[in-house]
Amino acid sequence: MRANLTPDVDLAARLFDALRAKTFDGVGITREAYGPGEQVAHALVRAEAEALGLDISNDAAGNLYMTLPGADRSAKRIVLGSHLDSVAQGGNYDGAAGVLAGLATVAGMSATGFQPSRDITVLAIRAEEAGAWFPTSYPGSRAALGRLPPEVLAIRRMDSGRTLEDHMRELGFDPDAVRAGDGKLSAANTEAYLELHIEQGPVLDAEEIPVAVVSGIPGSRRLRDARVVGEYNHSGATPRRYRRDAAIALAELAHRLDERWAALETQGHRLVCTFCVLATTAEAGFTKIPGEARFQLDLRSVQPATVDAMFAELHRLIGSIEARRGVRFELGEETGSQPSPMDAGVQQGLVRAATALGIAHRVMPSGGGHDAAAFAQAGVPAGMLFVRNQNGSHNPHEAMRMEDFAAGCAVVTRWAADMAG
Amino acid sequence: MRANLTPDVDLAARLFDALRAKTFDGVGITREAYGPGEQVAHALVRAEAEALGLDISNDAAGNLYMTLPGADRSAKRIVLGSHLDSVAQGGNYDGAAGVLAGLATVAGMSATGFQPSRDITVLAIRAEEAGAWFPTSYPGSRAALGRLPPEVLAIRRMDSGRTLEDHMRELGFDPDAVRAGDGKLSAANTEAYLELHIEQGPVLDAEEIPVAVVSGIPGSRRLRDARVVGEYNHSGATPRRYRRDAAIALAELAHRLDERWAALETQGHRLVCTFCVLATTAEAGFTKIPGEARFQLDLRSVQPATVDAMFAELHRLIGSIEARRGVRFELGEETGSQPSPMDAGVQQGLVRAATALGIAHRVMPSGGGHDAAAFAQAGVPAGMLFVRNQNGSHNPHEAMRMEDFAAGCAVVTRWAADMAG
Repeated sequence: MRANLTPDVDLAARLFDALRAKTFDGVGITREAYGPGEQVAHALVRAEAEALGLDISNDAAGNLYMTLPGADRSAKRIVLGSHLDSVAQGGNYDGAAGVLAGLATVAGMSATGFQPSRDITVLAIRAEEAGAWFPTSYPGSRAALGRLPPEVLAIRRMDSGRTLEDHMRELGFDPDAVRAGDGKLSAANTEAYLELHIEQGPVLDAEEIPVAVVSGIPGSRRLRDARVVGEYNHSGATPRRYRRDAAIALAELAHRLDERWAALETQGHRLVCTFCVLATTAEAGFTKIPGEARFQLDLRSVQPATVDAMFAELHRLIGSIEARRGVRFELGEETGSQPSPMDAGVQQGLVRAATALGIAHRVMPSGGGHDAAAFAQAGVPAGMLFVRNQNGSHNPHEAMRMEDFAAGCAVVTRWAADMAG
Repeated sequence: MRANLTPDVDLAARLFDALRAKTFDGVGITREAYGPGEQVAHALVRAEAEALGLDISNDAAGNLYMTLPGADRSAKRIVLGSHLDSVAQGGNYDGAAGVLAGLATVAGMSATGFQPSRDITVLAIRAEEAGAWFPTSYPGSRAALGRLPPEVLAIRRMDSGRTLEDHMRELGFDPDAVRAGDGKLSAANTEAYLELHIEQGPVLDAEEIPVAVVSGIPGSRRLRDARVVGEYNHSGATPRRYRRDAAIALAELAHRLDERWAALETQGHRLVCTFCVLATTAEAGFTKIPGEARFQLDLRSVQPATVDAMFAELHRLIGSIEARRGVRFELGEETGSQPSPMDAGVQQGLVRAATALGIAHRVMPSGGGHDAAAFAQAGVPAGMLFVRNQNGSHNPHEAMRMEDFAAGCAVVTRWAADMAG
């Protein structure tokens, strides 16, 4: 019977269309965390779950649980989840694909009368897009796990200026319970968490592979508000030795750090190093030597030692550049996260499922962060399945072929059936 | 009698105070070219010239001529000039110092009854601050010399969006006559042009020398609207080999070109190379690889071959970076100017004057461009005298000690008296 289980990809395709229709902003897709777009998405998904006869509930933070009951309701459950918010003017697939894959999976099981041995819960998580709304990692999934530090509730949404607590309360949820650590999920009641997600990067498309089993989610060290202070001077009248040029100091730092990255890659290390912003300020202009420049730095690797080595190089370069160029670096607050390896058993299960189905796959680390990291940090065996996509993510051109999504759903269904057969 | 000639520095000091009081904008000094601030300055200076009994007139472009008549009015005249406009939120001395030094000189001559052998004209020039108002070089002095290309009249002031012609006409001047080449000055009627100006750079202050005789004004090659086009991608999910990072491409270009500059200096070349703007655009943000960056480049040297060598290196680097990093450079329109050596005879005369007065001095190239370049290009023997200043120029903190200004005025007076004795 398990071998005949087929995900209901048509259901997912219909939901993708409805989501796009209801959250298109004129340029791309906007589903604000705890805002109108995310609410619309939750309502759509909830209505579909009701039609499927799933067991539906919310937790105190507004995460949505849609459960196909298992034969033993007290057994540890399987969670198939991802988030429903998007960045502003983003794409339709980042996040939503994982929720709809979960629904397609349980819908396919229901359609054939398959009852799993344990609950299978499709989880629609809140507020994953930290760069767009609340500048913190995974508030929704950490609340679901009862692990959200209370101070995170005071973080303000970047567009509204209002706190996470305000936004939760406005929608009828219970930030006091979140503060008290009242989560529905834990390592004690969850057998495994699986998140299907578009890759977000170009690797699978370039290598012509439809899906990948994710080996881990990188840790990061980040500077979001760093600057270099020099001195504005006349670009014609100030000889080289009298300059304190903030822009050229920053250019040297960025270029030399990039060269270090290239060298580390040659030695087999894997990391990414991005100056997301690198810019003279509004005061800059023609015939002026820049007296200030700002930058954002995003360093990530699944190997913490690699990130630390790059930061050590950063500090060494800064000392050298400050001494030679008469400028001063102010790095501001550093944020970051520890890497989260995916569970070896879940990885093996996914590889087995894909192999059994004859679906080409590879194993690769994630580039971005995902809710799966919050589950891994909470001790829940967590895994991810990437689906090939085109044009990256977080932009209106984000694309995913439905045949690749179908391949991903097939692997999820096979894996879930193995876990709850 | 010549030895007793003393410039009326008190008159200049009084005018500096009046100029500051009338053109302070709350932050610095603003004297818009062909705008209210420049008009106020012209009115103040004209009133002083009237009180001194000078012979006063305007030309078709609104430059102001204030002449101490010589014994032979048909003899070639001496011109002591500079500009009265300033950048927005600039300082009180850039430009005005040269006009007031001229007035102090002829006032000192008048006071002792000294009649020069030839006319000495104090010239208040319009619109020198190309980076602030009209993006072209020296429209005022080129019009005074009857050498302004007609198309320059169609250039728009950066703040008002209106053409130079409109602005001239609004103030009652005659752009049609400017277009026809109707200038008052030429190599045929001008013996020499001398411009006193603050140094704008830190050299004299660092070397503790009050004045400098300028050897030449550099030529330039400039990019005001250049950019690098790459591709926006997810900073976590895009491995190094799939990136087309515009910011790191620009950082490499800037750093490597700066290294080339350092090498050329070591070999004895003199130049300046400034990335005045070097910036990712508004679309940049955290977790994105920058897909675009913009820059302005200002390259100057009194040696054209040096500027050209740097531009050749620029093009070589761009080819290499484009090939390696998958980006595309778009350099936009290139502007520039030829270098203008100062007249050897004027330089020698200034050195003689300073030496005779016991005023410490050095010879140095200018860093910035000045109206003296327009005179040199027109075949008028031109010279410049720099006065030590603090805090650079084009900013509210621009400063000049009155004792240094007095030393400069003394050199100008001695030189003018030698030329018209």
